[in-house]
Amino acid sequence: MTTDTLGNSNAGAAMGRSIPRVEARAKVTGRAEYVHNLRLPGMLYGRIHRSTVAHARITGVDVSAAQAMPGVYAVYTAADIRKLIPEPYFGPAFHDQPILAIDKVRYVGEPVALVLAADPHVADAAAQQIVVEYEELPAVFDEVEAMTSKAVVHEVLKPAGTFPDLKHLKDKRDTNVALDFHLRRGDVQQAFADADHVFEHTFRTQQVLHLPLEPFVTVADPAPNQLVIHTASQSPSFVRIEIARLLGWPETRVRVKVPYLGGGFGAKLYIKLEALTAAAALIAGRPVKIALTMEEQFYTLTKHATTLRIKSGVTRDGKITARECEVWWNGGAYADIGPRITQKSGFTAAGPYDIDHVTIDSYSLYTNLTPAGALRGFGIPQLVWAYESHTDMIAKALKMDPLAIRRINILREGRPQATGTLMRDAGIEPVLERLAERMTWEKKYDRGSGTMRRGRGIAIGFKASISPTTSMAIVNISADGSCIVYCSTVDMGQGSDTAMAQFAAEALGIPVERVSVVHPDTDVTPYDMATLGSRSTYHMGHAVKNAAEDARDKLLALAAEVGLSAETTPIPDIFRKKYGMQAGNIIGIGSFIPPYTPPEPGTGLTTDATPFWMIGATGAEVEVDTETGEFKVTRLVNLVDVGRPVNPAIVETQISGATIMQLGFTLSERMEFDAGQVTNASLADYKIPGIRDVPPVMENEAVDMVQKTGPFGAKGVGESGTFGVSPAIASAIDDAVGVRLTSLPLTAEAVYRGLRANAGKPLQD
Amino acid sequence: MTTDTLGNSNAGAAMGRSIPRVEARAKVTGRAEYVHNLRLPGMLYGRIHRSTVAHARITGVDVSAAQAMPGVYAVYTAADIRKLIPEPYFGPAFHDQPILAIDKVRYVGEPVALVLAADPHVADAAAQQIVVEYEELPAVFDEVEAMTSKAVVHEVLKPAGTFPDLKHLKDKRDTNVALDFHLRRGDVQQAFADADHVFEHTFRTQQVLHLPLEPFVTVADPAPNQLVIHTASQSPSFVRIEIARLLGWPETRVRVKVPYLGGGFGAKLYIKLEALTAAAALIAGRPVKIALTMEEQFYTLTKHATTLRIKSGVTRDGKITARECEVWWNGGAYADIGPRITQKSGFTAAGPYDIDHVTIDSYSLYTNLTPAGALRGFGIPQLVWAYESHTDMIAKALKMDPLAIRRINILREGRPQATGTLMRDAGIEPVLERLAERMTWEKKYDRGSGTMRRGRGIAIGFKASISPTTSMAIVNISADGSCIVYCSTVDMGQGSDTAMAQFAAEALGIPVERVSVVHPDTDVTPYDMATLGSRSTYHMGHAVKNAAEDARDKLLALAAEVGLSAETTPIPDIFRKKYGMQAGNIIGIGSFIPPYTPPEPGTGLTTDATPFWMIGATGAEVEVDTETGEFKVTRLVNLVDVGRPVNPAIVETQISGATIMQLGFTLSERMEFDAGQVTNASLADYKIPGIRDVPPVMENEAVDMVQKTGPFGAKGVGESGTFGVSPAIASAIDDAVGVRLTSLPLTAEAVYRGLRANAGKPLQD
Repeated sequence: MTTDTLGNSNAGAAMGRSIPRVEARAKVTGRAEYVHNLRLPGMLYGRIHRSTVAHARITGVDVSAAQAMPGVYAVYTAADIRKLIPEPYFGPAFHDQPILAIDKVRYVGEPVALVLAADPHVADAAAQQIVVEYEELPAVFDEVEAMTSKAVVHEVLKPAGTFPDLKHLKDKRDTNVALDFHLRRGDVQQAFADADHVFEHTFRTQQVLHLPLEPFVTVADPAPNQLVIHTASQSPSFVRIEIARLLGWPETRVRVKVPYLGGGFGAKLYIKLEALTAAAALIAGRPVKIALTMEEQFYTLTKHATTLRIKSGVTRDGKITARECEVWWNGGAYADIGPRITQKSGFTAAGPYDIDHVTIDSYSLYTNLTPAGALRGFGIPQLVWAYESHTDMIAKALKMDPLAIRRINILREGRPQATGTLMRDAGIEPVLERLAERMTWEKKYDRGSGTMRRGRGIAIGFKASISPTTSMAIVNISADGSCIVYCSTVDMGQGSDTAMAQFAAEALGIPVERVSVVHPDTDVTPYDMATLGSRSTYHMGHAVKNAAEDARDKLLALAAEVGLSAETTPIPDIFRKKYGMQAGNIIGIGSFIPPYTPPEPGTGLTTDATPFWMIGATGAEVEVDTETGEFKVTRLVNLVDVGRPVNPAIVETQISGATIMQLGFTLSERMEFDAGQVTNASLADYKIPGIRDVPPVMENEAVDMVQKTGPFGAKGVGESGTFGVSPAIASAIDDAVGVRLTSLPLTAEAVYRGLRANAGKPLQD
Repeated sequence: MTTDTLGNSNAGAAMGRSIPRVEARAKVTGRAEYVHNLRLPGMLYGRIHRSTVAHARITGVDVSAAQAMPGVYAVYTAADIRKLIPEPYFGPAFHDQPILAIDKVRYVGEPVALVLAADPHVADAAAQQIVVEYEELPAVFDEVEAMTSKAVVHEVLKPAGTFPDLKHLKDKRDTNVALDFHLRRGDVQQAFADADHVFEHTFRTQQVLHLPLEPFVTVADPAPNQLVIHTASQSPSFVRIEIARLLGWPETRVRVKVPYLGGGFGAKLYIKLEALTAAAALIAGRPVKIALTMEEQFYTLTKHATTLRIKSGVTRDGKITARECEVWWNGGAYADIGPRITQKSGFTAAGPYDIDHVTIDSYSLYTNLTPAGALRGFGIPQLVWAYESHTDMIAKALKMDPLAIRRINILREGRPQATGTLMRDAGIEPVLERLAERMTWEKKYDRGSGTMRRGRGIAIGFKASISPTTSMAIVNISADGSCIVYCSTVDMGQGSDTAMAQFAAEALGIPVERVSVVHPDTDVTPYDMATLGSRSTYHMGHAVKNAAEDARDKLLALAAEVGLSAETTPIPDIFRKKYGMQAGNIIGIGSFIPPYTPPEPGTGLTTDATPFWMIGATGAEVEVDTETGEFKVTRLVNLVDVGRPVNPAIVETQISGATIMQLGFTLSERMEFDAGQVTNASLADYKIPGIRDVPPVMENEAVDMVQKTGPFGAKGVGESGTFGVSPAIASAIDDAVGVRLTSLPLTAEAVYRGLRANAGKPLQD
């Protein structure tokens, strides 16, 4: 084939193909661009002086020694920032976070001052010479205590106005509750009274970190007509809007450029270093780069620690009739996107089960810890941890098989979820059944003997997509039939550029090799809400498909105008007939915002909570040493419903990546605190999984599904692999040695203590 | 006003305002980006070894000494290029120019080999160590001799196929005529026979240079998925297409980025250094920069020297009844865009006069000189030089006033030009009359006495716009109502970014301060034929206006969709109602290709030769020293028809810039040759106008006109100031001292020789 036509000889040739990632060559040859590599002429390096106390009034800042150091260009505090930006508070949900601390600090590690120098080592040394005097205030660290603590982190709540559903919180005072979300379905108390059994358990999850191998980094360049921000961000459109708001500028005077990201996982969402870097660059009149160290990531953003109480009424046959959930989210000192997690994930806290009576109370709490944000799953892994552990504890109490109790209770197609939204294209049953099949669950299982015992567990979770959000795309066909896709989706390793190229090629019926995708750049690529919550495949996929179809329609119209058949005429000939030479473009525009019905205030009920559901399940096998409590995960089977996979090879790596990440959160990762001070802020002391921590057997599979409302049947996959990992392993341990752990991470020590506590009881049923 | 609506409260506020140039601040603060400033990691500098002979077979190239020099990365000759590009010939009209000389050289200065080194001084020194052996061939330098010379520059003609009207020349052999254009209207020979008088004169123009103060420069970066070319080019779209063609790649694998240009004037059109730089970068696998010296510009591109023979039949009352024109264009060794000039300007060779019988024969000739291309006027200044000198020589012979003979003969609105195309919105008469008024032409004029004599002259020219050509634009409105214009028009100092912002603001009815314009970048800005021939205001102006109107229509539709009035609702509120937050874009697409009827082959006749006419006239006053021939231009009055001026202040600078440039070509600039070798290739020896060469009185005015078919009544202005300068000054000299010069430049020596030749005759009538 030497020329392309719209005759669709290639239609269907792009979707579902495991083509190599479009950026693979750039990355393996070391030519891929990252912000850390960027140096601009005249650029200064910024280093942050951070708070050493968890909660205090600032009574003095002495920057004189720092300022006097040879090579220091400038030292800025909040007073300097306020000359440029009178109200320098930022944040996606609340305008609560100062660019540099104003009057008080709210967590250990909060930025207080910034040193600029041409030499980063000079800036570093000078930042250590800054002396801040504090008058300490009572602090609160635990999310449940924060509900009632006299230590109040913020005097007044300042919702950003970005999300209309937070407006009612404006000017609320003397509370650490940034948001309380409530769902009420049926009559839970009556159902508990009517139930054969009522079970109640409390679970906890720990603070953990995103820890992308590329730490946070931003370069701001005060160009003459525009402030140009190069940043490792998952949300360039949001950064542009937020920086323009802070400065009181039109959006178009701020340009945000994002090259490749060395991982994101939700850390690089909304706005992080961008506000400080931008302000410093504008005040200095010079390009400024702020690049955090690995340690500083511990002072920037964590995943919410949670306490989860869950109580269920159950019939003697194992049918769950009622469920009450309380979730306390430890949001740290600044809200970031926590309130949205509280609500947007909170409404699924009762799990993927068909329960007539449900109450959910979900609280987003301020504490004096590093702020918490979205981390691969947007709160769902914490919820699944609780409800799936709870499910297995009920099963054990009723002497039921874990698969059997789930078969009785799972939400089947067309049934209402707790909000009342009917389940559509949600492969809960197929995922569960395929997991059982791959685990050969119903065959006899050898659980070992003596000091080496084996066990297995399964867990399944589901997640809504955050809604409503908007994506836009442009597809531009050149006169030779090659094509460029413009979208602000950030390829941070998940392969989105490749997927978008496949969507465009599929819609146009041209070979995917003729499609390229440009990097996000707010001067170039149109608006996108953000690359988060596994939304891009569905939302941006639709936008790219719509743009490609718009381009295709325009090309058909052009062919008709010049009297040619688009089905049989090579694309270049259509252009040439119109323009007299190789000239012109066909530009298609696409946008997508899914339908959405906001939940009723108070009850949380809605008929349309999400455009699609993500399903993920894990089966785990473990071996436990009964003498030491040491255990190893010998097998993980991960099943997901991703609709129709766009690129099966990339889907597979997304599942395995998510699973391994959650494995770290399950087995080893935990931020340790002492009076709010992180005591293990290094990769030497905070253990993330290495290749030797990966289970010897890992199986990942996307079940055969189609998301009918999705672009070419597809939906997101980035998070689904995380859902079931923690509870499946905990249940496997319980299955092996009869020890039920209810707090993450799962450690040998905890198993050992459990074994000791159970001394005398049989290890296995 | 705090918010913008589409209520058009600002409509009409952008067009016709002398707002400051949008790039002014960037330029005066030294922050504007130019390719010369660009350095990339790992970049190599390329230096060219050039031919020392005008026409020769290459019998050997010895690069061993260069290659052996410490620090040299590589030395490439045509053999290396051909491994990458088997047919490495480029050019807009003919594929005649090799990237590096293949087998023979055709002019002194032709690139033969390229040295790459990390240090440009090393590359420079090494380039001088290359030894090429030549077997010299007979050469031809004069354009008229080239018609019949046995020295043939190209064995065979290779039309590029870009322009369909050159296809008939394919494979033509043994001729130096790259294109011959012929126009036949009426019966010239019969009309000559019937005329009261027949006058015939021959005129010549010299080789001159564009000499932008930023010499040619290109950086090519072989990125993993794309070849990125940063280049000082007036035609990024063409560069992309041509490089992709050479490499056999899809267009989208080539990205061409153009920052500000330090002048262009037609030099930086089509393809120049880009092919060599791109090939070198791909072979080396490293970024490569080639930046020419001022001297090397003399070996890259000139303006066509011409010989023009013009013969007219005239009644005793001064009515011109017939005209015969022959024009020989000295195209140098490679055609560049010369054949198009020959035709697209050639058809106006008879001048802006209403003549029933016209023949034009226009020849594009290969010679063994530096290639010639388009230079501010696309051949028109040469034609005006001839026909306006001729007009005044006729007037003098008939003892008529120069204004009077023009009043009798000029093309008035609605009359057919030589092609048969009717004149529309062509302010020939208003420009001429306003010039007469400003010169107080009909008042008595003091022509001095003794050795200081004064004289004055007027001249008027016209130009078609090259047609048909295509422009496309995108207008993107952000959620806060600010807006970005995407177009590939290159701002090379002419103020196009400012004009495009004004067009978009006018069409949207928003303040121009809320509109920004991005730099051309083929991955970002859509197709545009090129920034040439004063076409951008009209063509890209239409495209931007269309795109803005498309965006406005979409915004109106969006407002209606969400139940708001776009007339009264601030733009941000419309977005917010639709997207639930500050989100989204409205993207308008615009394209423009004017109607066009190709000329009949043979006769050159057409009813639709051009989308608009540019008119320019100059009145000059001189003082001549009768003892030495020295003269000075004391006053220049420049009148143009630009339709409705978009930005009067910029229009004024365009007129004065063009006039001063043409003043250099009129008075001082001339490339001197010795056997094809330029002997004055430096700004010390080749005199361009300085501030002290500007006449003490210069008046520039755009007459009150509207181009009805233009965007908001506008049309181009970049070249119109050049038209009348040379003949007006020559006529003023003749008026002062009775010496008629027929060759450019006009020198004191030539006047002195004329005075000597006329000795005894009265100086003035």
